[in-house]
Amino acid sequence: MTLHPSIAAVRVPVRAALSRLSEGDVVAVACSGGADSLALASAAVFEGHKLAQRIVGVTVDHGLQPGSAEQADRVVAQLAAMGVDETLTARVEVANASGLGPEAAAREARYAVLEEVAERLGARAVLLGHTLDDQAETVLLGLTRGSGGRSLQGMRPDFGVFARPLLGVRRDDTITACQVEGLGFWDDPHNHDPGYTRVRVRDRVLPVLEAELGPGIAEALARTADQLREDTLLLDELTGEALARARRPGGLDISTLRLEQPALRHRAIHRTALEAGVPASELTRGHVLDVDKLVVGWRGQRWVDLPGHRRALRREGLLVVEPA
Amino acid sequence: MTLHPSIAAVRVPVRAALSRLSEGDVVAVACSGGADSLALASAAVFEGHKLAQRIVGVTVDHGLQPGSAEQADRVVAQLAAMGVDETLTARVEVANASGLGPEAAAREARYAVLEEVAERLGARAVLLGHTLDDQAETVLLGLTRGSGGRSLQGMRPDFGVFARPLLGVRRDDTITACQVEGLGFWDDPHNHDPGYTRVRVRDRVLPVLEAELGPGIAEALARTADQLREDTLLLDELTGEALARARRPGGLDISTLRLEQPALRHRAIHRTALEAGVPASELTRGHVLDVDKLVVGWRGQRWVDLPGHRRALRREGLLVVEPA
Repeated sequence: MTLHPSIAAVRVPVRAALSRLSEGDVVAVACSGGADSLALASAAVFEGHKLAQRIVGVTVDHGLQPGSAEQADRVVAQLAAMGVDETLTARVEVANASGLGPEAAAREARYAVLEEVAERLGARAVLLGHTLDDQAETVLLGLTRGSGGRSLQGMRPDFGVFARPLLGVRRDDTITACQVEGLGFWDDPHNHDPGYTRVRVRDRVLPVLEAELGPGIAEALARTADQLREDTLLLDELTGEALARARRPGGLDISTLRLEQPALRHRAIHRTALEAGVPASELTRGHVLDVDKLVVGWRGQRWVDLPGHRRALRREGLLVVEPA
Repeated sequence: MTLHPSIAAVRVPVRAALSRLSEGDVVAVACSGGADSLALASAAVFEGHKLAQRIVGVTVDHGLQPGSAEQADRVVAQLAAMGVDETLTARVEVANASGLGPEAAAREARYAVLEEVAERLGARAVLLGHTLDDQAETVLLGLTRGSGGRSLQGMRPDFGVFARPLLGVRRDDTITACQVEGLGFWDDPHNHDPGYTRVRVRDRVLPVLEAELGPGIAEALARTADQLREDTLLLDELTGEALARARRPGGLDISTLRLEQPALRHRAIHRTALEAGVPASELTRGHVLDVDKLVVGWRGQRWVDLPGHRRALRREGLLVVEPA
């Protein structure tokens, strides 16, 4: 009997992720009941038990939709039937005063509760079911922001206690894996609501890109994200060093800052503006370039107005960002 | 009488480019007869003459299509009517033995002849008519390659004697500028041939992105290119330094190379493979990551096969890429 290729596609990266942990470790799997996370949970049970690890299936009930408690119960039953060692339903309240949009607020709340659960369980890792398709969508969404490498770097494969072993796996493989294993997955109606930009990217943009530019586009987007993530890591570190060199009480030393290459100077200005209270969502590359002209193209400009009632100006050889 | 906004949109960046040159300088404008380059030529005459510069209109006849000589004559007549100080038709033969595709070969030949012409004329600059739309298309084409920041950095605003002052101008503005000025522009039938990937990007992909993700997507792509170009400049320089540190007779010192951050290590490996004769078009991120495992994840692998009949291996503490 050979293993179905879609099941293998899911299991191989899950095995790689779990084999970095130890025997006896507790591993949590976040499961919504969708195909991605059900396939992930099933692979984690199979591979984790071979490694003598304890697999806990966790489902999060946001309580945002009617029937969400019943949906959580269904997922718990599926996880139990799959052979997880423990199931757990985490209920979260999404505070809407966070200044984030409703999707982002729900995501933040979900990660926070998963972190708490991991700590309580002593879990070494929390696995998340994001796929290569999610990654490609994230990169395309980032393109619309037009803020360079940072907005295109997609989701990290690891952050804190979280890991995303399926970032190289196509969504279709998770769906097929569920079908082959007889796992009935839940198709969230939100996944088809064209009111969400991400849904339009998935249903309308990516298919056009694949049709016109070739079938490898999702993989190409994911590879680009990987490489830009590496670049951003280094560039952020170098920016920190550049800032350390230029930082003086009250501002940044202009004669030091002007010696930096544009990539670092622009990042240093961006970070300084954020630290001074300029809202990230309103700070554009245009603003950064205007402030940069105070550094390398100064011809007597008085100041540059920035969002959040801030302004940038030169004062006694320093670049200063302060309340307007 | 106020200036039409589309004419202003073209003239402002042309003035900025020309004012970096001096009085009496000779400036060549490459003109195909399309809206972009006609609007560019007209703006260059207007702004260049105010700066006492000498504007030469250059049209390139590839001789690839029947009637191309007549088309070149028409452009020369338009340039003369526009008031350029001199017109020039450069005929090129496109060698098809270059190993490039026909589009790339024609482009290479065009730039080579424009460089020759510039030298003969003593021109300080050769202006090219690429617009923000061309830049957005180039970024999207780069996405399909999936090779990170390098493939997304788009066209450079300046390289060698060439300058692209319209990279921030929308194509629609060049069309409107021509219409307002009564310049009949030529619509190359190749610009609508869906056999070209670039044409499909222009006609089918970008409109979908604008419809689904918002009208600012072309500008966002162009901004991303600008930022990634800065990043690439710095990262390439740092890669050169990393290579200089690791270079030994016969290969790269592994104990030195392994101390570099992934962004630089991967670029150093990429560059080393190219220098050893691996064809750029066949070298993937997958290959680079496999070679990287010889450096930071070595468990006795014998070698990594690379395209172009090359292989990478460890020999006496060195990473070596050599004929297989």
